[in-house]
Amino acid sequence: MDEFGVIERFFRHTPQAESVLLGPGDDAAVIKPTPGMGLTMSMDTLLEGRHFPVGFPAEYVGWRSLAVNLSDLAAMGARPRWALLSLSLPQVDEAWLEGFCRGFFTLAEQMGVSLVGGDTVKGPLSITVQVTGEVPATRALRRSGARPGDKLCITGPVGLAAAGLANWQAGITTGALVQAFAQPIPQCQTSLRLQGLATSAIDISDGLLADLQHILTASGGIGADVHVEALPLTSEFLSWGDGAQRQQAQLYGGDDYQLLFTLLSHVNVPRGCVQIGRITSRPRIRVQDFQGQWHDNMAIRGWDHFTS
Amino acid sequence: MDEFGVIERFFRHTPQAESVLLGPGDDAAVIKPTPGMGLTMSMDTLLEGRHFPVGFPAEYVGWRSLAVNLSDLAAMGARPRWALLSLSLPQVDEAWLEGFCRGFFTLAEQMGVSLVGGDTVKGPLSITVQVTGEVPATRALRRSGARPGDKLCITGPVGLAAAGLANWQAGITTGALVQAFAQPIPQCQTSLRLQGLATSAIDISDGLLADLQHILTASGGIGADVHVEALPLTSEFLSWGDGAQRQQAQLYGGDDYQLLFTLLSHVNVPRGCVQIGRITSRPRIRVQDFQGQWHDNMAIRGWDHFTS
Repeated sequence: MDEFGVIERFFRHTPQAESVLLGPGDDAAVIKPTPGMGLTMSMDTLLEGRHFPVGFPAEYVGWRSLAVNLSDLAAMGARPRWALLSLSLPQVDEAWLEGFCRGFFTLAEQMGVSLVGGDTVKGPLSITVQVTGEVPATRALRRSGARPGDKLCITGPVGLAAAGLANWQAGITTGALVQAFAQPIPQCQTSLRLQGLATSAIDISDGLLADLQHILTASGGIGADVHVEALPLTSEFLSWGDGAQRQQAQLYGGDDYQLLFTLLSHVNVPRGCVQIGRITSRPRIRVQDFQGQWHDNMAIRGWDHFTS
Repeated sequence: MDEFGVIERFFRHTPQAESVLLGPGDDAAVIKPTPGMGLTMSMDTLLEGRHFPVGFPAEYVGWRSLAVNLSDLAAMGARPRWALLSLSLPQVDEAWLEGFCRGFFTLAEQMGVSLVGGDTVKGPLSITVQVTGEVPATRALRRSGARPGDKLCITGPVGLAAAGLANWQAGITTGALVQAFAQPIPQCQTSLRLQGLATSAIDISDGLLADLQHILTASGGIGADVHVEALPLTSEFLSWGDGAQRQQAQLYGGDDYQLLFTLLSHVNVPRGCVQIGRITSRPRIRVQDFQGQWHDNMAIRGWDHFTS
C-alpha cells in the first residue's frame, strides 16, 4: 500500500463538517470560516521516545497528538474547528494506523474537529498536527494579562499524568493515572467560559511552576503565591507515592493539559475550577508546600517530557 | 540554547502583517482573516535523505520546505497568507538555523507569507510546514473539473529540477538547473490569474504524467493527449543530457512545482503559460514523443523524489 492508498483508506472518510468545502485528496483543503471570528492556529510535533514511550499503543498516540494541540487552542479560549495531520511512519502498519485513527478521530469527534488534510511520509515515527480554532479576536486569552492581586486558578488536578507515566514505566499499564497520561482531555469546554473573563491563561504542558513562570514573564515580570494544599486531587492520585512525590508531580509534572489562568480579584471562580493562589508584584514564585511551609524562589524547571 | 531560546532568537522576529494579531510566543497565534474569503490549508513534511539530499545547504532546505507548501496553495488558486513551522533538529546548530531562516524568510517575504507559530523538537532532521491561503470559495481550483475537449496547459518548463538533482548528485552544485531543484518558485502569481478560469489544476510535484493522471482520475476517468515538443524549454536544459534523458525528466521528473491546468476550449491561454495538449474522453494518456511518435498508455510512474 503506497502513500496514496494510506490516505485514501484511513483518512479520506473523515466526517465533513458544513464548514469543510473540500477535504483531504486535492492539493489543499477549502474551508469556510465563521464570519467575524478570529482564527487561532497551533502546531506541535510528537516524536516516539521523546513525547511518548517507544511502543506506546497507537490509539494513545493518536489521541495525544490531537489533544496536545487542542489544549493550545483551549489556552486561547478558542473553539477548535479544523486539523491537519502529517504522519512520518517507518512502514505502513495497518493495525497501528487503525489504532491511531481510533484515538485521533474519537477525540476529534468529541471536540467537533474536522481533519481536512495532511501528509504521510516514510521515516522515523513522528506525528505533527496543526489545528485551527475560532475565537472573537478581542476575547482571545493571552499569557500577558496577569496583574498583581489577580486570583490564580486551575481547571483541574495536575500531577496525574506524571504519576501515570511513572506507573507505565514501572509496568502498570492500566488505571486512571495511566489514562490521564495516555488520553488527556483538553479543556476546550471550560476554555469557552473563560473567553473575555480570564486576564491570562496557559495550558500546563511543561509543569505547573514552569508554565506559571511563562505567564509571570509574559505579564511583565511579576510573581505569585501558590498553595499546594489548594490543588485539586483524585483518590487514585492520593494512593500514589508519598506526599513529597505527589507534590513533585503536581508542581513539576507536565502532560495533564489543565489550564492555568488568572481572574480579576472580584470575579468569581467558574464552577469546576479552583483558586490555587494569587498574583503578586514581587518577581518570584512563593510556594506553600503540603506541610504548610513557605518556599521562596523554588527551582523552576520545565518538564522535559519523559526523557527527563 | 534550549528550545525556547531557539524560537526567540530565530523565529519571533518575523515581520507581523496587519492580519496577525498575535504571532509566535503564546500558546497559539491569533489571526484576522479577510471577510468573505474561503481558507485553503495544506501541510507537507520534508525529511532529510528523502525529500532533499543529506547535507543539502540549509538555505535551500528552508526555501524548499515553504515552496512545496505554497505550491499546493497555488494549485488551488489561493493567495498565501500564514505559515506554521515545526522543526525537528538533531541539535541546535546556529549556522544551520541562520541558513534555514534566510531561505525560508526570503521566500516568505516575496510571497507575502507571515510565519505565525510552530514548534521545535530534538530529533532526526525533518521539517513540517503548514500554510493557509485565501480564495473566494467558489473560485478555488480543484483537480476534478477537467472535461474532454479542454486545453491542457502548463505554467512553465518541467524537467529542470530533475536535471538539477542529477547534476547535484554528480557533484555539480551550481547553475540554473541545480537552482531549479534547490529553490523552486511556487506559481502563486500566475495562480491568481487562473482563479475561476481554469477548469482544473494541480501542481507538478510527482511528475507531469503522474500529476496529469491525478487530474484525469479526479475528473471521472478521462484521458489526455500530450505533445512533448510543446513543453517549454530553457537553454540550460537543452544543453543537459540527450533527447531521451530530457524527455524522461520532462515527463517523470518532479519538484519543478509548475502548475498543470485545463481550460475550456474557447478560452485563451494566459500569457506566460503554454498549451501542451488536450483532454480526451478515452481513459488513457497518449504522448507524442520528441521524435513525433505517438505512445499509448505510457507507463505512469510517480516521481518518488530523490530516493528513486
